[in-house]
Amino acid sequence: MSTYVVALDVGGTSMKGGLVTAEGEILLTDRRPTSRTEGPLRVIEKIRDFVEDLSAAGKGTTAAVGIVVPGPVAGNTAVYSANIGWKNVPATDFSPLNVPVSLGHDVRTAGLAESVLGAARSQPDFLFLSIGTGIAAALILQGDPYAGSTGWSGEIGHIPVIPTGERCTCGQIGCLETYASAASIARRYTEHLTRASSITPTPHITAPLTAEDVIARAMRGDPQAALVWDEALEALSLALATYTLLMDPSSIVLGGGLAEAGHPLYSPLAERLQEKLTWRQAPPLHHAALGMNAGMLGAALLAWQSAGHQNPGTTWPLDAPTPPPVP
Amino acid sequence: MSTYVVALDVGGTSMKGGLVTAEGEILLTDRRPTSRTEGPLRVIEKIRDFVEDLSAAGKGTTAAVGIVVPGPVAGNTAVYSANIGWKNVPATDFSPLNVPVSLGHDVRTAGLAESVLGAARSQPDFLFLSIGTGIAAALILQGDPYAGSTGWSGEIGHIPVIPTGERCTCGQIGCLETYASAASIARRYTEHLTRASSITPTPHITAPLTAEDVIARAMRGDPQAALVWDEALEALSLALATYTLLMDPSSIVLGGGLAEAGHPLYSPLAERLQEKLTWRQAPPLHHAALGMNAGMLGAALLAWQSAGHQNPGTTWPLDAPTPPPVP
Repeated sequence: MSTYVVALDVGGTSMKGGLVTAEGEILLTDRRPTSRTEGPLRVIEKIRDFVEDLSAAGKGTTAAVGIVVPGPVAGNTAVYSANIGWKNVPATDFSPLNVPVSLGHDVRTAGLAESVLGAARSQPDFLFLSIGTGIAAALILQGDPYAGSTGWSGEIGHIPVIPTGERCTCGQIGCLETYASAASIARRYTEHLTRASSITPTPHITAPLTAEDVIARAMRGDPQAALVWDEALEALSLALATYTLLMDPSSIVLGGGLAEAGHPLYSPLAERLQEKLTWRQAPPLHHAALGMNAGMLGAALLAWQSAGHQNPGTTWPLDAPTPPPVP
Repeated sequence: MSTYVVALDVGGTSMKGGLVTAEGEILLTDRRPTSRTEGPLRVIEKIRDFVEDLSAAGKGTTAAVGIVVPGPVAGNTAVYSANIGWKNVPATDFSPLNVPVSLGHDVRTAGLAESVLGAARSQPDFLFLSIGTGIAAALILQGDPYAGSTGWSGEIGHIPVIPTGERCTCGQIGCLETYASAASIARRYTEHLTRASSITPTPHITAPLTAEDVIARAMRGDPQAALVWDEALEALSLALATYTLLMDPSSIVLGGGLAEAGHPLYSPLAERLQEKLTWRQAPPLHHAALGMNAGMLGAALLAWQSAGHQNPGTTWPLDAPTPPPVP
C-alpha cells in the first residue's frame, strides 16, 4: 500500500493528472479534456471526477490534493479565469476527497517547480517567463512565488514595451504579448503575407502558420518573417531589461512552447538584453527543465506541503540536471 | 538616563542624524555636510565622528546605530556609491561604538519608514517611488523592503519607458529618469528655451530653472513647459503601469522633491495610469507622509531591530495620520 498525492494541472484545453509519492516517484499519469465549452460548473465537475478516479487508481492512500489552475489564485480560492469562466471557487469545491487540497496559479506553480526541481534549483530569486499562446511570469522571490497584493502579479505579457505601438486584444497599447507570444508572432506574419498578397501574388497558404514556422522562415532569410521575429525579440528584451532593473533576478528561466525555439531565441535575446543594460550584467537565460510536467510537479509540491511536509521535493531524484546558461 | 539609538541618513550633500528612543521620541537631531569631494575615506571618518558625537550628546545609553547610505547595500555592507565613491564598506567601519550597527539603502529604508510609520501603514505590498534629482524605488513586499538577488533592485529610474527615445546619462535609451526626474525636467525645458532662443529672442534667464518652475510655467500655459511636463507624466505613468502589472501593489507612495508638486502631479498621473490599465484598477497614489525625516526614521527602525526589538515603530505615536488617496 503506497501513499501519494493527487496532482492536477488544469489547462484551457486539457488536464494532466498524476499520483506522486513523498519521494517524488510518479506512480501514474493521465490526461482528460477540460471541456470548457460546457461551462465552468461542468469543468469543476470534471476536475472532481478526475481527482476521485486518480485517487482510486492508485489503490493506496491519498495524503492530499494539489491543483493548478489558469488565472489568479488568492488564498486558496480560484479568483477568476477568462478562459474557463469561473469566479471565486474555493479549493475544496475541486475535490470530493476528505484530505487537504491546495490550489496554485498555473504559471506561478510551474515556476515553483523549476525552483525546487528544475532549471533554477538553489536560486531563491529568479524570473520564470512562460511564452506560449500568451505570456505570463512567475516571480520567485526569496524561494517562493510572489502573488502580489491581490493575486494579480506577473502580468508581464501586458506591460507596455512599445508605448506607441499596436493595440493589444486586452485594450492596452504596445503590450509585450501583442509582439512576442507564439500566437502574435504567427498572426503578425500572416498579416504581413496578407498585405503583400494584395499587391503581388504569393503562394497559397494551406495550413495556419505557427510561430515555429515564422522563426524557421526568418532563419532562412524571409525578410517579412525576419522583421516579425526581430520585433518579438526586441519586445522580449525590453521586458526582460525592465524586469532586471526593477527586481535584480539571479537568472531568467524561459518556459512554454516558444522556449523550445533554441538558438534562434536564446542567443539574440541574451545579446539584446545585455545591450540594453549598459551598467549592470544581464542575468543568464536558462531553458526550463521540466517541460510540460512543470505544472503537475508543482501541484504535487503544493499537495505535499498541505499534507504537512516541510520543503517537499528537495530530495526528489528527478532526471533534470541543472542546465548550463544558454547560450 | 535615557536609552536611544543613533540614526543617520547619509546623503550626497549632507547627513542628517538624530537620537530616537524605543518609544519613537526624537531626542535631538543635527545635520552636517557629507564632504564627498574629500573622498570616500574622509566621508567614512566624518560619519564615525558624527555617530560618536551624537551618541555622547544624548548623555545616556546608546543601544545601537542605524545608518542609511546611497547605493546598494547587501547583507550589512555598503556595496557601492557612484556619488561618494566607496566600495564594499562593512557596517562596522561606520561606527566607533561598541554596539550593533545596521546599514540600509537610502530609498529602501525610507520606504520601510513609510510602511511602518507613514503613508502606507498596514500595507504589506506597495511601491515607494522617490522622485528627486534621480528616480529610484523601494519595493515593499510582504512588509519588508526587497533588495533583489544582489542588492540592486528598484532601479525604476532606468527602465526603458520610451524605447526609441533619448539616451540617458547612464548610456541606456529612454530611461524614466531622463524624462521625469526633477533634474531632467529642468534640463529638458532649458534645452527647449535654448533652441527657441537661437531662432527668436527670449527673455534673459537669470537663475537656473527648477522642475518646480517648469511645472508652474506649464500650469500658466507656457507651451514648451507643458510639453516637457506632459512627457514627464507620460513616462511616469508608463513606469507605474508596468510596475502595477508586474507586482500588483496595493498602493504607490510618492516621495522626494517632485512629490511636493501637489495637484499638477497627482491628478493627471492617476488619470493616465488608469488609462493605461484597461482591465485592472490602478492602485491609489499617496503622498509620502514623513518627508525629509523618512531616511532618519528608517535608520532608527533598523537600529532598534539590530538592538533586538521585534517590530519597532508599530507603537510610535508619530504625528503622521494615514493620508487619503490623492487626488
